[in-house]
Amino acid sequence: MSGNTYGTIFRVTTFGESHGTALGCVIDGIPAGTKIDSEVIQAALDRRRPGAKNSGGFNAAVTARSEPDKAEILSGVFNGYAEGTPLALEIRNTSQHSKDYSDIASSFRPGHADYTYFKKYGFRDYRGGGRSSGRETAARVAAGAVAKMVIEQTLKSSVSIKAFTLKAAGISCKNIDLNQIENNSMRAADSEAAGKMIERIEELRKEGNSTGGIIECRIQGIPAGLGECVFDKLDAELAKAILSIGAVKGIEFGAGFEAADLTGKENNDAMSIVDGKPVFDTNNAGGILGGMSNGNEIVFRAAVKPVPSIFIKQKTAAANFNPDAPILNETAPGTGTPAGLGTPSDNASDNVTLYQKEMQIQGRHDVCLCPRIVPVIEAMAAIVLADMLLRNKAARI
Amino acid sequence: MSGNTYGTIFRVTTFGESHGTALGCVIDGIPAGTKIDSEVIQAALDRRRPGAKNSGGFNAAVTARSEPDKAEILSGVFNGYAEGTPLALEIRNTSQHSKDYSDIASSFRPGHADYTYFKKYGFRDYRGGGRSSGRETAARVAAGAVAKMVIEQTLKSSVSIKAFTLKAAGISCKNIDLNQIENNSMRAADSEAAGKMIERIEELRKEGNSTGGIIECRIQGIPAGLGECVFDKLDAELAKAILSIGAVKGIEFGAGFEAADLTGKENNDAMSIVDGKPVFDTNNAGGILGGMSNGNEIVFRAAVKPVPSIFIKQKTAAANFNPDAPILNETAPGTGTPAGLGTPSDNASDNVTLYQKEMQIQGRHDVCLCPRIVPVIEAMAAIVLADMLLRNKAARI
Amino acid sequence: MSGNTYGTIFRVTTFGESHGTALGCVIDGIPAGTKIDSEVIQAALDRRRPGAKNSGGFNAAVTARSEPDKAEILSGVFNGYAEGTPLALEIRNTSQHSKDYSDIASSFRPGHADYTYFKKYGFRDYRGGGRSSGRETAARVAAGAVAKMVIEQTLKSSVSIKAFTLKAAGISCKNIDLNQIENNSMRAADSEAAGKMIERIEELRKEGNSTGGIIECRIQGIPAGLGECVFDKLDAELAKAILSIGAVKGIEFGAGFEAADLTGKENNDAMSIVDGKPVFDTNNAGGILGGMSNGNEIVFRAAVKPVPSIFIKQKTAAANFNPDAPILNETAPGTGTPAGLGTPSDNASDNVTLYQKEMQIQGRHDVCLCPRIVPVIEAMAAIVLADMLLRNKAARI
Amino acid sequence: MSGNTYGTIFRVTTFGESHGTALGCVIDGIPAGTKIDSEVIQAALDRRRPGAKNSGGFNAAVTARSEPDKAEILSGVFNGYAEGTPLALEIRNTSQHSKDYSDIASSFRPGHADYTYFKKYGFRDYRGGGRSSGRETAARVAAGAVAKMVIEQTLKSSVSIKAFTLKAAGISCKNIDLNQIENNSMRAADSEAAGKMIERIEELRKEGNSTGGIIECRIQGIPAGLGECVFDKLDAELAKAILSIGAVKGIEFGAGFEAADLTGKENNDAMSIVDGKPVFDTNNAGGILGGMSNGNEIVFRAAVKPVPSIFIKQKTAAANFNPDAPILNETAPGTGTPAGLGTPSDNASDNVTLYQKEMQIQGRHDVCLCPRIVPVIEAMAAIVLADMLLRNKAARI
Repeated sequence: MSGNTYGTIFRVTTFGESHGTALGCVIDGIPAGTKIDSEVIQAALDRRRPGAKNSGGFNAAVTARSEPDKAEILSGVFNGYAEGTPLALEIRNTSQHSKDYSDIASSFRPGHADYTYFKKYGFRDYRGGGRSSGRETAARVAAGAVAKMVIEQTLKSSVSIKAFTLKAAGISCKNIDLNQIENNSMRAADSEAAGKMIERIEELRKEGNSTGGIIECRIQGIPAGLGECVFDKLDAELAKAILSIGAVKGIEFGAGFEAADLTGKENNDAMSIVDGKPVFDTNNAGGILGGMSNGNEIVFRAAVKPVPSIFIKQKTAAANFNPDAPILNETAPGTGTPAGLGTPSDNASDNVTLYQKEMQIQGRHDVCLCPRIVPVIEAMAAIVLADMLLRNKAARI
Repeated sequence: MSGNTYGTIFRVTTFGESHGTALGCVIDGIPAGTKIDSEVIQAALDRRRPGAKNSGGFNAAVTARSEPDKAEILSGVFNGYAEGTPLALEIRNTSQHSKDYSDIASSFRPGHADYTYFKKYGFRDYRGGGRSSGRETAARVAAGAVAKMVIEQTLKSSVSIKAFTLKAAGISCKNIDLNQIENNSMRAADSEAAGKMIERIEELRKEGNSTGGIIECRIQGIPAGLGECVFDKLDAELAKAILSIGAVKGIEFGAGFEAADLTGKENNDAMSIVDGKPVFDTNNAGGILGGMSNGNEIVFRAAVKPVPSIFIKQKTAAANFNPDAPILNETAPGTGTPAGLGTPSDNASDNVTLYQKEMQIQGRHDVCLCPRIVPVIEAMAAIVLADMLLRNKAARI
Repeated sequence: MSGNTYGTIFRVTTFGESHGTALGCVIDGIPAGTKIDSEVIQAALDRRRPGAKNSGGFNAAVTARSEPDKAEILSGVFNGYAEGTPLALEIRNTSQHSKDYSDIASSFRPGHADYTYFKKYGFRDYRGGGRSSGRETAARVAAGAVAKMVIEQTLKSSVSIKAFTLKAAGISCKNIDLNQIENNSMRAADSEAAGKMIERIEELRKEGNSTGGIIECRIQGIPAGLGECVFDKLDAELAKAILSIGAVKGIEFGAGFEAADLTGKENNDAMSIVDGKPVFDTNNAGGILGGMSNGNEIVFRAAVKPVPSIFIKQKTAAANFNPDAPILNETAPGTGTPAGLGTPSDNASDNVTLYQKEMQIQGRHDVCLCPRIVPVIEAMAAIVLADMLLRNKAARI
Repeated sequence: MSGNTYGTIFRVTTFGESHGTALGCVIDGIPAGTKIDSEVIQAALDRRRPGAKNSGGFNAAVTARSEPDKAEILSGVFNGYAEGTPLALEIRNTSQHSKDYSDIASSFRPGHADYTYFKKYGFRDYRGGGRSSGRETAARVAAGAVAKMVIEQTLKSSVSIKAFTLKAAGISCKNIDLNQIENNSMRAADSEAAGKMIERIEELRKEGNSTGGIIECRIQGIPAGLGECVFDKLDAELAKAILSIGAVKGIEFGAGFEAADLTGKENNDAMSIVDGKPVFDTNNAGGILGGMSNGNEIVFRAAVKPVPSIFIKQKTAAANFNPDAPILNETAPGTGTPAGLGTPSDNASDNVTLYQKEMQIQGRHDVCLCPRIVPVIEAMAAIVLADMLLRNKAARI
């Protein structure tokens, strides 16, 4: 299993390389009768697009690569309703600029997956990162839009899943206002802070440098009792889903790492009964107890690393192979040896001589990924919740 | 799928409630011919045991419940070798003290899974947390010991997986020395800091309070190229595995949340060629790039929340049902309605009247979980790595 | 999980309805470095096509629907090699003739999946059977071609997977000659018998009737030891894969149902040592012992039912709903009730009044499915074997 | 994945070797609140036991090995109800007679899995077939009893799953009467035919020979709409489940292989409306259309091969290894080479010299497996149906 599928009942399989013919997804397990609004899917994709305009105007943080990202539904929907069969959806790549990448075909860009993919597969798709490109997340965003339809139609009530840039380029939001998120190109929940972020990002862009940030996600409207015991806890699944996004290096729920400094008395969320219903007085748990939603707002934060593509000379390694014959060693991959981990001496990638070099990345790249990752985090959260909701259908006799 | 299985090739299914007859695991996918040393499994369990002695003497941080935790292998091993068939292993519960818990059968302990399990299942196993108890992790530790055997025999080299308390009760390790870990009852990598932690924990114990902490895990000897693309990234799987441990509320890899403040130039790990082999000059990536190991040390940190069981009166909710008839509403669970999420009005747990109460937890409880979670984190990391290693066997033709 | 994925390591997900935009598949788990020959994939599709010509000329047995079935690879292949990432492949539908089916939108065709899909989903895609159409098998045939590449490149030797019509319209092959298969339009292994089959089929066509048959599959070149213990036995997986083909109603291995009449002495395949290698004197086991290949030829037969679409009036049931609003009951599918099985009174499909009617099917249809199922059986066998071969990679330390 | 788990939502994992410490199963996915009657589980096991008495007296067909087969539930049940957590269940082996098998440790019994397990794992558990022994089915029977509870409590109606010997030793039932099944030691649905079967079996026993048979299974009370589209069709899953039983070599549904000779007009099951409900006039489909139940009786037949253990000299192969050191080649399994399929020259099992021999099996063995497989077939059918029923919970919005 190569790891391109997420979910148990609501199952999303994505496919596609950055510079291949198309990318897309197949979503299996959409309950029959779910209303599928293809315009909502397209709107979600439009919001993720590199060139998407927020109301704040030009997006300083992100790349200029321009793709229409037009989704076409190939199957699974009839007269506007899910048939219960797989919904396949594709997005054709139109702006592929392969030449931009030809000079890096034999070099491993620092901070990128180039070296690790090469070690795993004995092979390189050097065209813009191939499968490891952030472009793959377009398929996730489309699937996330469908997931949200499933959640809301299952619950028969609306659910709010809102992520935003909490911090970027060292600058944090101070007065969190979720209504501000789409009013600035950082997708920050504080437009004043966003202004400072953009300033700092412009400086970094001029230096050819980049920056990271923290994204917070808040989810309202999820009933208590979602999540499975032991391994497939709700927070465990969210952690997997969010960490599966390329640049994310950490996640915390509720009080998170600060809980380490709290006492039990401070950290426990007391319960009150208000109008006959239980209410939590605080939310250090981030809405999840024992791996299941407790009915409180679900809150988590994700650490986003700086964009690895910078326009400053960097020291790295390169391999002396012919980039036009991407199989490094015709013999080795054909010998039927395992992936090299058990038998390093037969490892194709070990047969290649590496040498040190300085490299300078060219082309178009984001300075800070936060605003573009915001919709991806929302999408992954929706996918996890849709799956958990459907898994719960069989939880009781 | 109820979420009690982890892994794709190396698959661990755990079972057992805190106060049931036995707990244990079934491990499917152990390669035939793996040498299985049952004493190593038992030693791992002994190290996790509540009453385990570290060389430093009495363990101030942990509970006094005493279980022999004697593992019995039921299948899958013949003459000391794995047969390629499932290894089932059980640990009988002997110290069950059910009476300790009878007074909390109808109350939801703050910070525990009582309320969420009740909402999910319409049912309570009020005996010491049932399946949500930390006792379940014994099975993981046994499986982790087997996982390590698989890793080392597959790689034919030793691998070091070491977790330790980095911070507890607000006190951090200063001089990290992995040789100190087993020399103090906090399993801290700095025995001097450990002394201060223990002092502070003793104060909290007297107050009936508790505390959290941060555990760091460092893994050496893993080759580059482990991890699957897109969803089953190595860091995503580790995040899921670690967040599936009860008290863990966050995880970060390498620079983690601090990467948010770094520039790309600072954060990228440059590569050098030393003796013809690639070496990373720094390790902000925590040994994982693009979701795959890069050959560098794998480093992550987990946030551990304070023990929720404190001996201070707390405000919480309780339900007016008969704890001896744990099905809350005989009719509702028998109506075939879904798990209640889609049809709240038919939800068994919503038919029960909740009321507010003050509760005082009795019994024996840890003050800080860190020292006991250390072996669980190592075990989960080993399980993930064993699975990834076996998945990699089919990665190349 | 909606059941549109087959396989554990080599995983094939198909999508697409008979009259939707496109059908296709996503294949995850192809080992990186596998040479992918897209012409071989296209040739396999061409062989399955309704209008495909065998050397024998006009195919009497099959339908006249004409689709180019041109496969386009969307991802996963670079410079002719599998990247280790998902290979997505689509086939656009071009000859959709929706009008042909409009008169049957509210009737359940006897022998078809119309009624059962309606009961499961509360919904009908009345366009040519929707997802239950045999057209879906085009995606399987494409995936099977890739599977064969994986098998042969893994084994580094050629493998022969040959299915043929053993019996059709009551006429059996007598002198089996695998070289005859592509020489007659029945894909029978005996062209003389094929001639008689075709004669009988022509008579049935004139009567508006149809017929069934038996297909045999023989596989050479598979080493001993493929198949997993207990549930995922090689024969169990082959049985699932072959029974998942629409019209197949039975499968038997080796002596199969005749083994019921044999004694153990007759049925056991004795082993001889020839040139130091074990050889089986007979093959009643059909090449599979204890659920694993034994190195002998793998032999199985599949029972194919008569084509259910006949041009004779048939008694059946119909439902009084508006075929242009295919959700039968807007309220019911939106109520969040389960699939109707647990709560029949809320079942959308039970809210619809059924009435008896006589129906006469129109249009173009096969008389005997055997020649078109032959390549599908080969494809499914290849998919199972590729998966088992890759699963075996981790079978030993 | 080693194939010891069946099911998607209702998941059964079995473990245990014939002569190991214990065998058993872990069932994950039982809906919380299901009433679990442990006496029903034990009764099912008692019925499968080798020495089980049917009302007809001494069971001529089956072995004399006597095991109490006492099931102990280790987890997942509290106060008689499923908790929603895994139900683990173990059966200790008490009658292990290892010495009976020591003389066959280096020989491959014809018709058994000895050779194929050896080729797959490079290893032999020569104690009574190890994991490939029919003894493993005890765990399936226990799980099947739980599955039936889930089905009936989900549907809130009783379901009849009855298998019986239709043919054995060449003698067929003539007047099928399901009430006869437990009245004769063949579990035949015709006690007169059973008498003849027993006579013939006694003759075969005296000759040291054995025989096969055909088992039919009829299932009533299953609503229409169970089964998933494409790969996980109801008949496909039943085929897998039934073929996963050791001695089964074929399966057919409804008209099955005879459908090959029918015309479409004969084979299609017409529908009538009786009391406003659809009724099928015939049942050539065996209750399954398009891979989903159609509400009609589900009918299938399984071919059971003759018991391979006969007391007549047989020609077979043996290997010159030390049976007390079951790893055939210490070096090879430790080299990290794959399972031998890709790299035959490094294959441990190929390093062993094979030689031809005549062997004579000793000990206690069945003459005809049919009566003992009857409860296993019912159990596997129940497991499939429970899983399909729970999967259906999420089929509609």
